[in-house]
Amino acid sequence: MSRTMTAKPQANDCVDSVGEALGALSSVVGVEHVCADGGTLDRYGRSGMPEGTMPMAVVSPGSTQQVRRVVEIAARFGLKLYPISRGKNWGYGAACAPTPGQVIVDLGRMNRVLEVDRELAYAVIEPGVTQGQLWEHLQHHAPDLWMDATGAGPEASVVGNTLDRGFGHTRYGDHFLHTCGMEVVLADGRVLNTGYGHYANAKAGRVYRYGVGPSLDGLFAQSNFGIVTRIGIWLIPRPEAFCGYFFQSQREEDLERLVDAMAALRRQGLLQTAIHIANDLRVISSRTRYPWQRTGGRTPLPEEVRAALRREYGIGAWSGCGAISGTRGSVAAVKKAVKGALRGFEVKFLDDGRLAMARRLRRWLSAVGIGGRFGALLDVVEPLYGLLQGRPSIEHLRGAAWRVRGEVAGLGEEDGALAIDPLDCHAGLMWVSPVAPAKGTSAREVMRLIEPIYQRYGFEALVTFTIITERAMCCVTNLAFDKRDTEETARAGRCYDTLMTVLIDAGYVPYRTSVHGARKLGRGSSVFWDVRSQLKRAMDPRGILAPGRYEPQ
Amino acid sequence: MSRTMTAKPQANDCVDSVGEALGALSSVVGVEHVCADGGTLDRYGRSGMPEGTMPMAVVSPGSTQQVRRVVEIAARFGLKLYPISRGKNWGYGAACAPTPGQVIVDLGRMNRVLEVDRELAYAVIEPGVTQGQLWEHLQHHAPDLWMDATGAGPEASVVGNTLDRGFGHTRYGDHFLHTCGMEVVLADGRVLNTGYGHYANAKAGRVYRYGVGPSLDGLFAQSNFGIVTRIGIWLIPRPEAFCGYFFQSQREEDLERLVDAMAALRRQGLLQTAIHIANDLRVISSRTRYPWQRTGGRTPLPEEVRAALRREYGIGAWSGCGAISGTRGSVAAVKKAVKGALRGFEVKFLDDGRLAMARRLRRWLSAVGIGGRFGALLDVVEPLYGLLQGRPSIEHLRGAAWRVRGEVAGLGEEDGALAIDPLDCHAGLMWVSPVAPAKGTSAREVMRLIEPIYQRYGFEALVTFTIITERAMCCVTNLAFDKRDTEETARAGRCYDTLMTVLIDAGYVPYRTSVHGARKLGRGSSVFWDVRSQLKRAMDPRGILAPGRYEPQ
Repeated sequence: MSRTMTAKPQANDCVDSVGEALGALSSVVGVEHVCADGGTLDRYGRSGMPEGTMPMAVVSPGSTQQVRRVVEIAARFGLKLYPISRGKNWGYGAACAPTPGQVIVDLGRMNRVLEVDRELAYAVIEPGVTQGQLWEHLQHHAPDLWMDATGAGPEASVVGNTLDRGFGHTRYGDHFLHTCGMEVVLADGRVLNTGYGHYANAKAGRVYRYGVGPSLDGLFAQSNFGIVTRIGIWLIPRPEAFCGYFFQSQREEDLERLVDAMAALRRQGLLQTAIHIANDLRVISSRTRYPWQRTGGRTPLPEEVRAALRREYGIGAWSGCGAISGTRGSVAAVKKAVKGALRGFEVKFLDDGRLAMARRLRRWLSAVGIGGRFGALLDVVEPLYGLLQGRPSIEHLRGAAWRVRGEVAGLGEEDGALAIDPLDCHAGLMWVSPVAPAKGTSAREVMRLIEPIYQRYGFEALVTFTIITERAMCCVTNLAFDKRDTEETARAGRCYDTLMTVLIDAGYVPYRTSVHGARKLGRGSSVFWDVRSQLKRAMDPRGILAPGRYEPQ
Repeated sequence: MSRTMTAKPQANDCVDSVGEALGALSSVVGVEHVCADGGTLDRYGRSGMPEGTMPMAVVSPGSTQQVRRVVEIAARFGLKLYPISRGKNWGYGAACAPTPGQVIVDLGRMNRVLEVDRELAYAVIEPGVTQGQLWEHLQHHAPDLWMDATGAGPEASVVGNTLDRGFGHTRYGDHFLHTCGMEVVLADGRVLNTGYGHYANAKAGRVYRYGVGPSLDGLFAQSNFGIVTRIGIWLIPRPEAFCGYFFQSQREEDLERLVDAMAALRRQGLLQTAIHIANDLRVISSRTRYPWQRTGGRTPLPEEVRAALRREYGIGAWSGCGAISGTRGSVAAVKKAVKGALRGFEVKFLDDGRLAMARRLRRWLSAVGIGGRFGALLDVVEPLYGLLQGRPSIEHLRGAAWRVRGEVAGLGEEDGALAIDPLDCHAGLMWVSPVAPAKGTSAREVMRLIEPIYQRYGFEALVTFTIITERAMCCVTNLAFDKRDTEETARAGRCYDTLMTVLIDAGYVPYRTSVHGARKLGRGSSVFWDVRSQLKRAMDPRGILAPGRYEPQ
């Protein structure tokens, strides 16, 4: 069992040994659901960040009732608990607690889809429910409903992503905004139901978020105030008509115009989904790994190789996508508005009918031995089109392995073959994700700030701008490195620190961070963080839950 | 000075007299901005509820800095502070504190529109800014932007309504949801900026609500955790094309179909505004007062008189409205969808062009001495059409005076002439506003619950169902009475209590309440309210701010 704890069990009424604490946990969840062996701890201690943290143990409760008892035991023995849903918090620390020695509360066993309301279009789920599982469940039980999915892959938890305020691609791309009603186990073992959920017969508990009185939901995202054991999430009724749009521009300087055009349509309410605009490198990284051979190992990516890759894969400086849904008539009208706004750019529309035709075409072409390139294009477009309809896919995790070198199990040489878990292939990955107003000049300024930093540290900026609301845009850039290369890993860490500092000081504060990034968040006025701490003390005076999570100090 | 205080100044370090406290307040805000004369206190102590509460004094700070100092003085002298924005919280207690003896902090002087961003479409305002003022401001400085307005009239505060989670008619009908960034004076005088607002240079402070870390905004709505002195609110870019739709049904039982049809379009994202569906009495109450003569003073309204009024005013059992905006093409497509969904009902569409034509027609008709009825209809439709574009109007307050008897200054006999302030004409008014899932069966059940209660107590149910989100519907019903009639007033109080109890127990919990209603809110599990109290103690350990506000106990 690991002893690398900084947070030692505190002297308490009846504390006496770690063994006793684990025994008490075992008596609640079953001995098979408490692990403290080296292999397990090593696995949970992995992270795409330069350093992971080694937990003291991993406990897997199977019900809200068990979570309550785990919390009570933690209080008794002075344990620190770090709840995870599925631990797939890629690029933000995966399953790792902020500090070593916390007990991971793995909620993966609590994976029930408790309810699906087809009329009102919502589901009630537990934290262990994965994107893939929910998608399958809907296919079978409510094929008329779509969910929203992130690019984090089918194994990622819906609740986990939501509580970190992740986002996807559909009309309900802002995940936190489309939840309704949380069940939360508090640090003292009480169970809080937010919204109207605390009224036994509440009819609107899953349809009206605020309830009456103060709205407490916001306290449980990006914090450590409770363990969320259940949420309601809204689903999207399958529209009468749907089409995805894909646009491209060949010139880097077009970013401004693209952002302005799309954001204006968003603010008019004409477009309602998240709109993603990725740079060439981000797209290339989902098709292939860094060209180590071709560059002779040089980094960052030389401009001429970058230009060549762009040509070879037929992609532009910027590639964007989003979707339109409604009636046939309204979709046609909005398509026209999109075409008008993107005049001068390549825009393509794809719907179920065209996709089916393309699939048939591929079959014919491959039957006569041609069409490899067309097939490859379809391989890229299909999962993306799926995401626009909320279908989770493994494809979009590829970028995580961008800078991994050489042959790796599960990853072909300089090829984008799948790796289900980036941590299995030594992928170092840190997301840096500042928020900016959804306007072209802001996009340009963010690029102007980050590109030279990436370059200086020997990396290249893989960038997506996502217009998530009518006014805000999140720039997600991944700092990819090979974790086996200690020098590169250390350099990535310094690059990350510089990016965070420069961006926050320029006013582009991240929407989400790892524990490493959270340390930088205190650069603003202290009142906000002081109030956060006051509330934390009120909710969890002994600091049992996830100490360090989203805490700048 | 009024001495009707239940909450006496507490013995504190240096407390000595109310006079000394008022002196200290005067030294901060100026002696002319501290009132404790009987006339002022009486005016602030009025309410449409059966009973108002008499404040100890009224203090009117002119800046955030002054609010901080007022809070510090309150702490020193043990005063209780009840902040109001404009005090126009009609039907929920107006300007009254939950208990007598609180010092009203009237923020009406803080009425600056601090910023309007025309590109990103938002404004930053202080609590004293009224709906009418903001509308005028936009007319002059940003005519390309629309706001959302409630029916509470031009004198109501935007911030005040938002913090009680009021709603209006446009795409941004859910006011709280369309705020971004709050400045809040806490009970200890610190100033908290939520979202990204606490980062000095934050670029996304008015465009991305969550900021990073827990989101605290929800704590400051329907609560007493701080005094909000500034908020960002999102505005609506004037659309290329716009049309209002108005529908009617003659049969009571059609409510179910209407709600189901409109909610389905909302969930498809085809309709994006709030959709209001009012019963005959609600519409009649905005045209005339209760027919006291015709009924010979009998209440509730006899069915035959009700039927006659319906015929005379040409209105149906249910009347609804909403709006569509977008491009010409998309508006035409959505109109078609609305027509399809409302097949069998009367539906009318109105846009700027048709309205201008109707105005010309009225002029012609009145020039030849006819068209009185057409003119009257236009008088009703125009303000409603304005509200669909966020233009505040006085018209919709008329219903408040429904049961006021006889001749009243500012109100013609049995006529709907304007009364700017319902409290000036003895209007008793209590809103009861349960939330239900946006589906027909729920609407029917709510009607089935409330109508017999209204009848039993001698009132009639004036009802609007507003589909505020894709899944939730708020039923607002006004219990109107004549405050000069003590027996009726007492009966209204009992009717209100019964309505609240029955609705909450049936699971239809109000979205908002007066202090009278708040006492009923504790009928659910206590954990939620206990946590609320814990948070309150953490933020305001001495209970300085608005004790009793949204506190069930």
